[in-house]
Amino acid sequence: MIGATVQVHLRNLDTNKGVITMRMVDLIVKTRRKEALSDDEIHAIVSGFTKGEIPDYQMSAWMMAVCLEGMTKREISELTLAMMNSGEIVKLDDLAGVKVDKHSTGGVGDSTTLIAAPLVAACGGTVAKMSGRGLGHTGGTLDKLESVPGVSVELTMERFKQIVADIGLCVMGQTKNLVPADKLMYALRDVTGTVEGIPLIASSIMSKKLASGAEAIVLDVKAGSGAFMHNAEDAERLARTMVDIGNHMGRRTMALITDMNQPLGLAVGNGLEIIEAMEALSGKLDENDHLLNVSLMLAAKMLIASGLAKTAEEARKMLMEKLASGEGLNRLKKMLYAMGGKEEYIENPDKLAAVKRLVDVYPDDSGYIGDMRAESIGVAAQLLGAGRAKKGDIIDPATGLVMHVRRGDRVTKHDPIATMYVNDDSHLEDAVAMLKSAVAITAQKPNDIPMVYKEVD
Amino acid sequence: MIGATVQVHLRNLDTNKGVITMRMVDLIVKTRRKEALSDDEIHAIVSGFTKGEIPDYQMSAWMMAVCLEGMTKREISELTLAMMNSGEIVKLDDLAGVKVDKHSTGGVGDSTTLIAAPLVAACGGTVAKMSGRGLGHTGGTLDKLESVPGVSVELTMERFKQIVADIGLCVMGQTKNLVPADKLMYALRDVTGTVEGIPLIASSIMSKKLASGAEAIVLDVKAGSGAFMHNAEDAERLARTMVDIGNHMGRRTMALITDMNQPLGLAVGNGLEIIEAMEALSGKLDENDHLLNVSLMLAAKMLIASGLAKTAEEARKMLMEKLASGEGLNRLKKMLYAMGGKEEYIENPDKLAAVKRLVDVYPDDSGYIGDMRAESIGVAAQLLGAGRAKKGDIIDPATGLVMHVRRGDRVTKHDPIATMYVNDDSHLEDAVAMLKSAVAITAQKPNDIPMVYKEVD
Repeated sequence: MIGATVQVHLRNLDTNKGVITMRMVDLIVKTRRKEALSDDEIHAIVSGFTKGEIPDYQMSAWMMAVCLEGMTKREISELTLAMMNSGEIVKLDDLAGVKVDKHSTGGVGDSTTLIAAPLVAACGGTVAKMSGRGLGHTGGTLDKLESVPGVSVELTMERFKQIVADIGLCVMGQTKNLVPADKLMYALRDVTGTVEGIPLIASSIMSKKLASGAEAIVLDVKAGSGAFMHNAEDAERLARTMVDIGNHMGRRTMALITDMNQPLGLAVGNGLEIIEAMEALSGKLDENDHLLNVSLMLAAKMLIASGLAKTAEEARKMLMEKLASGEGLNRLKKMLYAMGGKEEYIENPDKLAAVKRLVDVYPDDSGYIGDMRAESIGVAAQLLGAGRAKKGDIIDPATGLVMHVRRGDRVTKHDPIATMYVNDDSHLEDAVAMLKSAVAITAQKPNDIPMVYKEVD
Repeated sequence: MIGATVQVHLRNLDTNKGVITMRMVDLIVKTRRKEALSDDEIHAIVSGFTKGEIPDYQMSAWMMAVCLEGMTKREISELTLAMMNSGEIVKLDDLAGVKVDKHSTGGVGDSTTLIAAPLVAACGGTVAKMSGRGLGHTGGTLDKLESVPGVSVELTMERFKQIVADIGLCVMGQTKNLVPADKLMYALRDVTGTVEGIPLIASSIMSKKLASGAEAIVLDVKAGSGAFMHNAEDAERLARTMVDIGNHMGRRTMALITDMNQPLGLAVGNGLEIIEAMEALSGKLDENDHLLNVSLMLAAKMLIASGLAKTAEEARKMLMEKLASGEGLNRLKKMLYAMGGKEEYIENPDKLAAVKRLVDVYPDDSGYIGDMRAESIGVAAQLLGAGRAKKGDIIDPATGLVMHVRRGDRVTKHDPIATMYVNDDSHLEDAVAMLKSAVAITAQKPNDIPMVYKEVD
């Protein structure tokens, strides 16, 4: 068993010169003892691992120590910077305006990007967003866009910039060489119990946002049973960490802590979420609808971070005008057309959810809807074909489910709580059981919980 | 990146049946969350890793979580048991008497085995000890024995038992297939910063003691700058953990917590320590000499654990008789002869330290001898050839150093603090500098510290 030595290039030439060699095991011990690593040591770890010089067994031990003992603010910033610099850095300088990005830590029924981004573009914002494939139980934004036949999310950088210049927004897949360190680290974290831990989550997200050229960043950090962070306090710590990293790097960064104790929207499934986003943009949803309201709050932050509005009130007013005029919906459609989407589906979105069979799901008891395990509802949709159980699985974009109830609603045994959109019913029974087990029916009306817990600037 | 699944054989057939398959990553997460693993889960980890089914990167992450989050008493016992069962279990039932073993967690100038074991044998005890190669800076007991020309520590099990039956003691090298899990785990711990951590240290030591057939076990747990455990409280926690494991497994187990803020004996080097042990056994040392006193206390515990004495006083009296009669020295010589040692050296041990050159080391200042970093004194001896810098290095058995001072002594610049025994002087300057830096010279007389901090039964 041989451990790696790493070359630490000392950058502060006033006080130190040249290159020193140190053993990775000594850096692991430092983190285990909660002694902060120097900037140079952190860069040596990330670059040594990315080059394959540090073996997986040392990296996994170090990441476990990071998970359990944490890192200082400075260390987390340097880790993010080192990861960002492990691959290509996208330059968007030739696009006019403040390039604003929006990122969610991962929720169920979360189509906020498809609502907020077109509205921000309609208000004059520049949304140039690169997105990763969904790691969660249901698809990510890329999978949702691809549910529209013809749409391609693999664009050249030139085409991507052209669409942003023309329409004010585009969402494309991450370029291949964006933050290779994160790809390698994430694959190892996934099998070594180190997916959690604020320094690793924060640096993973922020290194990709920074490398993809965003000049302003709005983060939607989810809290609740269906999220990485189970409570609002942990979510706030994660949000604060990421906001600090972004601002430290000179990017205006803001965050909302939002609830994930139930799916955000009613639709869970790729085509179904496109339909729901279009409904929201067409003004059919009430302004207090959870999905629309959270989307509007995120969009308002995007306008403020872009310097296009000064206050949340001013931003909200701008956004409501574009919602009423239909300009938001218009921008989303324009983007789908520009990315190759077929008119037949863009103009008749119901066709995106054309399935063989609809199955209503009824509760076993009457009562109030209590807490919902959003993650399990995501798994139910996955079992119907809406998400991937493992990398490479093929998604059926028309499948999924639509919830008919929200936390606090009263139901009888004769009221369907959801409708499932089914093509292949081989896992239907499991999906129904999973959904029912995820929705608590209680005798007492549950306490109200907020849609948004906190804003972190 | 693929994680292992492990087969957990459920042994409690009343409540569970058959075999279940679980993912190693889920067991890592349990330990990371400080949730105790079941006995079956622990056995699955050890056997899966030993068979090569669990990759190093998962094992190292798990061991880091164990280091930082600890384990319950039950978990540590089961880990020890699982490691013990990973290879051959030595049976010593055909030898008469209670087979007693003695183990030190590793000190500098520590030849207690060579003093205590012959005295215990002289009192009617049965010392059948298997020893590993020294992992520390200076040699272990095997290296010391091999410094006597002709001695072989690689014996057949038959020869080993014959010597024990004839003389009452024998120390041989561990059989090849003893606790393979520990060999694999130790190699990984060594490069992943997980050498520390009480559950891993305790299970590593105790699995080997249990597998090598010891029926009674006396542990010498070192505390101080030169030991794994830097203070007496940590050493006591380690000792308590190991004593509990041994007793839980039906082996009478006791421990002493002894000081390692200076080398225990004056000699540091393989032949030099044989000479010092023989001097101690010949009655030339004062009864309050650190090395002799600690050896006598360990030997007394060995007699009590063997059932040959009831109290420490009774045991001490028995041992002092054998010291005075020369029967202890006689047993050591008999063992060396039985293992092939040449008469010329056994009868004239000074020949074991015949070197080209003796070099006295003087202090830079006058004053009192304060704390000594025993580990650094061990490294100084290693630089002269007395220990291995890496596995496979060849030891020069005659080299090393003899200290002339102990903590609390008063010295002037003209009093040598040590004499170095030198054959190859290529690292002599470094060795002298290392030794001098390891010995503090203070204006004030340092506080007394005990030789033995505590007894743990």
